[in-house]
Amino acid sequence: MISVSVVGASGYSGLELLKILVRHPAVQLDSLFANTSAGKQLADVAPFFRKTMERVLESYAIDKITKSDLIFIALPSGEAMNLVPAMLSAGKRVIDLGGDFRLQDTSLYERYYKRPHSASALLPQAVYGLPEWNYTRIQSASLIANPGCYPTSAILPLAPLLKEGLIESNGIAVSSLSGVSGAGRSASVDMSFAEVNESVRAYKVGIHQHIPEIKSTLESLSNGQVKLSFVPHLLPITRGIYTTTYATIKKSFKEEMVLAAYEKYYAAAPFVRYSSTAIPEIKNVVYSNFIDIGFRVNQEDGQLIVLSAIDNLIKGAAGQAVQNMNIMFGLNETEGLK
Amino acid sequence: MISVSVVGASGYSGLELLKILVRHPAVQLDSLFANTSAGKQLADVAPFFRKTMERVLESYAIDKITKSDLIFIALPSGEAMNLVPAMLSAGKRVIDLGGDFRLQDTSLYERYYKRPHSASALLPQAVYGLPEWNYTRIQSASLIANPGCYPTSAILPLAPLLKEGLIESNGIAVSSLSGVSGAGRSASVDMSFAEVNESVRAYKVGIHQHIPEIKSTLESLSNGQVKLSFVPHLLPITRGIYTTTYATIKKSFKEEMVLAAYEKYYAAAPFVRYSSTAIPEIKNVVYSNFIDIGFRVNQEDGQLIVLSAIDNLIKGAAGQAVQNMNIMFGLNETEGLK
Amino acid sequence: MISVSVVGASGYSGLELLKILVRHPAVQLDSLFANTSAGKQLADVAPFFRKTMERVLESYAIDKITKSDLIFIALPSGEAMNLVPAMLSAGKRVIDLGGDFRLQDTSLYERYYKRPHSASALLPQAVYGLPEWNYTRIQSASLIANPGCYPTSAILPLAPLLKEGLIESNGIAVSSLSGVSGAGRSASVDMSFAEVNESVRAYKVGIHQHIPEIKSTLESLSNGQVKLSFVPHLLPITRGIYTTTYATIKKSFKEEMVLAAYEKYYAAAPFVRYSSTAIPEIKNVVYSNFIDIGFRVNQEDGQLIVLSAIDNLIKGAAGQAVQNMNIMFGLNETEGLK
Amino acid sequence: MISVSVVGASGYSGLELLKILVRHPAVQLDSLFANTSAGKQLADVAPFFRKTMERVLESYAIDKITKSDLIFIALPSGEAMNLVPAMLSAGKRVIDLGGDFRLQDTSLYERYYKRPHSASALLPQAVYGLPEWNYTRIQSASLIANPGCYPTSAILPLAPLLKEGLIESNGIAVSSLSGVSGAGRSASVDMSFAEVNESVRAYKVGIHQHIPEIKSTLESLSNGQVKLSFVPHLLPITRGIYTTTYATIKKSFKEEMVLAAYEKYYAAAPFVRYSSTAIPEIKNVVYSNFIDIGFRVNQEDGQLIVLSAIDNLIKGAAGQAVQNMNIMFGLNETEGLK
Repeated sequence: MISVSVVGASGYSGLELLKILVRHPAVQLDSLFANTSAGKQLADVAPFFRKTMERVLESYAIDKITKSDLIFIALPSGEAMNLVPAMLSAGKRVIDLGGDFRLQDTSLYERYYKRPHSASALLPQAVYGLPEWNYTRIQSASLIANPGCYPTSAILPLAPLLKEGLIESNGIAVSSLSGVSGAGRSASVDMSFAEVNESVRAYKVGIHQHIPEIKSTLESLSNGQVKLSFVPHLLPITRGIYTTTYATIKKSFKEEMVLAAYEKYYAAAPFVRYSSTAIPEIKNVVYSNFIDIGFRVNQEDGQLIVLSAIDNLIKGAAGQAVQNMNIMFGLNETEGLK
Repeated sequence: MISVSVVGASGYSGLELLKILVRHPAVQLDSLFANTSAGKQLADVAPFFRKTMERVLESYAIDKITKSDLIFIALPSGEAMNLVPAMLSAGKRVIDLGGDFRLQDTSLYERYYKRPHSASALLPQAVYGLPEWNYTRIQSASLIANPGCYPTSAILPLAPLLKEGLIESNGIAVSSLSGVSGAGRSASVDMSFAEVNESVRAYKVGIHQHIPEIKSTLESLSNGQVKLSFVPHLLPITRGIYTTTYATIKKSFKEEMVLAAYEKYYAAAPFVRYSSTAIPEIKNVVYSNFIDIGFRVNQEDGQLIVLSAIDNLIKGAAGQAVQNMNIMFGLNETEGLK
Repeated sequence: MISVSVVGASGYSGLELLKILVRHPAVQLDSLFANTSAGKQLADVAPFFRKTMERVLESYAIDKITKSDLIFIALPSGEAMNLVPAMLSAGKRVIDLGGDFRLQDTSLYERYYKRPHSASALLPQAVYGLPEWNYTRIQSASLIANPGCYPTSAILPLAPLLKEGLIESNGIAVSSLSGVSGAGRSASVDMSFAEVNESVRAYKVGIHQHIPEIKSTLESLSNGQVKLSFVPHLLPITRGIYTTTYATIKKSFKEEMVLAAYEKYYAAAPFVRYSSTAIPEIKNVVYSNFIDIGFRVNQEDGQLIVLSAIDNLIKGAAGQAVQNMNIMFGLNETEGLK
Repeated sequence: MISVSVVGASGYSGLELLKILVRHPAVQLDSLFANTSAGKQLADVAPFFRKTMERVLESYAIDKITKSDLIFIALPSGEAMNLVPAMLSAGKRVIDLGGDFRLQDTSLYERYYKRPHSASALLPQAVYGLPEWNYTRIQSASLIANPGCYPTSAILPLAPLLKEGLIESNGIAVSSLSGVSGAGRSASVDMSFAEVNESVRAYKVGIHQHIPEIKSTLESLSNGQVKLSFVPHLLPITRGIYTTTYATIKKSFKEEMVLAAYEKYYAAAPFVRYSSTAIPEIKNVVYSNFIDIGFRVNQEDGQLIVLSAIDNLIKGAAGQAVQNMNIMFGLNETEGLK
């Protein structure tokens, strides 16, 4: 049994993580930390846990995790970097669901997250937790930077195409649509039902913190420069991300190469479902750790259109985090996730 | 007073048209045709008209429109081309809200609409009813092809940029999101609440009938070939279209040219609202005839992102049709629309 | 022309009021007050007003309304009672959309609104602005207490039945469902999209401030004691209230008496639509000032079920306020509302 | 291992059942029947099963179930009564999720279901599968009539109150709100997204087939006549039922008796969560087999208000069916359901 603690247990990602962990056959839950709700019953904060999980939320302190093998951090970006150094020093393994350890280049971190990085010395040992591409490094990692929700939905469909040279690496357009839970649990007029319902808006165009994560990961995986625009849109749904990507095909491109590229990299990936016919839909992936990938070729105009769908809270956060845990601890990658 | 009849009064576009026409100070409603509901009270088909508009729906016949100056046709594409020849012969002016007269090239019509065109002889006199670009031709037109909802949302933001040479005319990606009313009023599992709600899906990728309308209109307005991909997505909202377009900027491009281009073509357009700061949102345009246009420049990657929002049933259908009527009959373009 | 000012112009009711007033042929807008947004353009706070209504919001002061004939107050309850005395002293007529002047019994006000009443001396001259029942008193009123949204939806269907003695005055159950805009424009986790969407909850059961308004108004109209339970529920829709009321029928009850009662009181009411066959639906009344009323008799169990639907922001707030204004100033009751 | 077949596997209840059964540790799935989709892959009909459950749908025939211990029937009402006689003759145990065996009185069946009953001889052996009240009879049953969704949500909160004599057995008002999946998977304009979204409507008032199920079950459990009105409402959500019930309290009533009654009957019920403080919300029960029950007393007007929430597809259908299976086969009641 892996002894696990969760820091930030009362946010949307944290709660989703608890739902998975409580059913996971190899996990024993140690402590649940949620500073703003410390002392409360979990079921008072999240009533769907009544009669399922009766636990008290605690305020975090380093000496409370001595029995834990693994710590999940599900806090807003900017907080993990203050906690992780002590955790690693204490010999703990850590999976951070926030953005603090995803960018190796601190100047990008500072530009997009608008704050200095206080633990940049740990960046070299942070492993970007995308199991389909970094499986081996994840196995031995002490610190996992769990990928962002948008990046997961954009990188998985694009990486094989870039790596195999099917598309131009510039002029890529990534159009993403997200449900509201991606923004976390917080009070604001902008996220109120009456403002979000029956509307759509693009937001943080050109300044979203996932832009450098998508670009630098794709550049690293494909060993080359990538030029793209990423625009996130807020939709009136609770869960799910839908990403439509447009790229210019190379002269040597043939339609059958797309499926072949996905076969090459994902044939054995348990949570990637690709198809040359089916068009992804959010409803097919919500409450699951799957990413669905589809595509269409526009030969006449020289473009390839790639479509993907994930559950932002599962494959885009808590599910992928558990997938990483499974790999780190030598379990079957799908344990507790199917 | 303009005497007006509506053919197809009981569909979503037809009903929206009635709501506008009933308040229009210069319009007198002649006959309302709806073959499948003929003989019924309008208010039985659409109860929100109770106590507002008490009219009987009729089955259409050419001799019933002798008193009408103008006929609006709000039928599914493929039906108007069978009715229009007789209407024009009878000296009537016609605004067709469907797709039958929007493509001058019948081979494109046949490829995308999957049927032969039975009235191609009338195409030369059909005027594409986009008032911001064809005002003068609309004034004297007998037959208006009212633009499609997606094309309206895509052409208006793109045309000035192409015409002024700010962006490359190839590699354009047009990502559109539409509410469900755009699909019309019909019974299908695919459009049922339980299937659409809390989901998103792209559809008709590469085969949507608005693709040739967008391309050929932009080519005609900019006098050059245009290469683009257009992907429509179905959203769980009732009304509205949101279109995000990605284009490669030319070397000579400067950010201030965008606003200047919109100023040049739309400064006097009463229903175009553009801004270099505000990001469009569907909720700001629903129930109005406005299109909101915004943009952001991604200088680093050489791309321009243009965003637009309309109400698909108003600026994308019934409102634009009334705008065209106003122009045809010498009224103020905004009459009955503000 | 009536010169009108609005205090609280930037909330949902205030904005809805502006939309009606700007099209009203007999109204001239004097000042728009919104303390928290003072100095801003209205269109910056509510972008749908761009190119339609270009006005600056001001902070309220009594000397700024000297040119106004009428003041609408669209503030949270508890604020109007501090402003109204000076307005009336200055000879202004006032329509308050909040709850401060709806209860003649200050002990009820204090129990349900949880604060003392600071202007109880004005209560005798406050007229409850339900035009279908208080038309004459509204004509000459200086101070109108515009009814609450739930009370409007509950009182209009019930009052004729009680007054005509068709149902028992005890054991009445009023079950109301409301869209989220009824809660006003505010930041809270409880009203965030992710918490409200795909759920339903009853709230303020037994303590909602509209309970005494419904009971005391029905008692006053029917000259007798009324015993009822009212339960409001929050739904994931933006606009609309649906109220289902269950009452015990008296021994003398006959089904045809229901329609007769509605005929007797509402035959000439321009905004009441009742039917013995049609079941109300929210979509038939949104964006209108209508209330739709339907009913069914359960003879076997001795109960009458009455159903009603309104738009909470129009007939439940801004529309009814303008209806009251029309009556106060001798205009046609429907002016600007159809 | 229990060998299980499902007839009607491709409807909403059938699919939900499959999701539960595929994870159930004591179940082995034999055949999946779906006549209209026979020959298709399950994952083509319901793509979320891709890579999770790769099975072919078959057309039903009695000789295909010889290896099954238990048959679940998830067909529209009226079909099961034609299949069950042969199944029972073949020695199979059956759980019918439809309405054919819920009413012991065939005259009620014929009045509300509008068809004759073709298998009334089996009614005496049919057990109403409400585990909280019929546990012992379910253990030995061959034929389970799985309760309707609305009846489950109404009977569980009311039965203890009637049985303990806390409320009058007449004048009860049951107001229920349901998500759209309750109507099944079918093509109709009435259930299309654009018609259901942003609206609410009561439907089948006085004629819904769950009325006699609720009344006769409560009468049977409380040994007395019950007079009530039940009104179902359609909401724009996918899953969940919310039921608010109003009853007259007896003179001897004391507030603490309510909790005591629930304690008496449900203290050991694993899926009933009751509370004297918490108000149920649909979001707390969706995707679970729980029913949440809350209440408030209106002493002043002599009424008790009881609130409940369930997931209509789980506790209201597939989950309760599996709960019944567990009891029939001597398993822990919660197996596969937590």
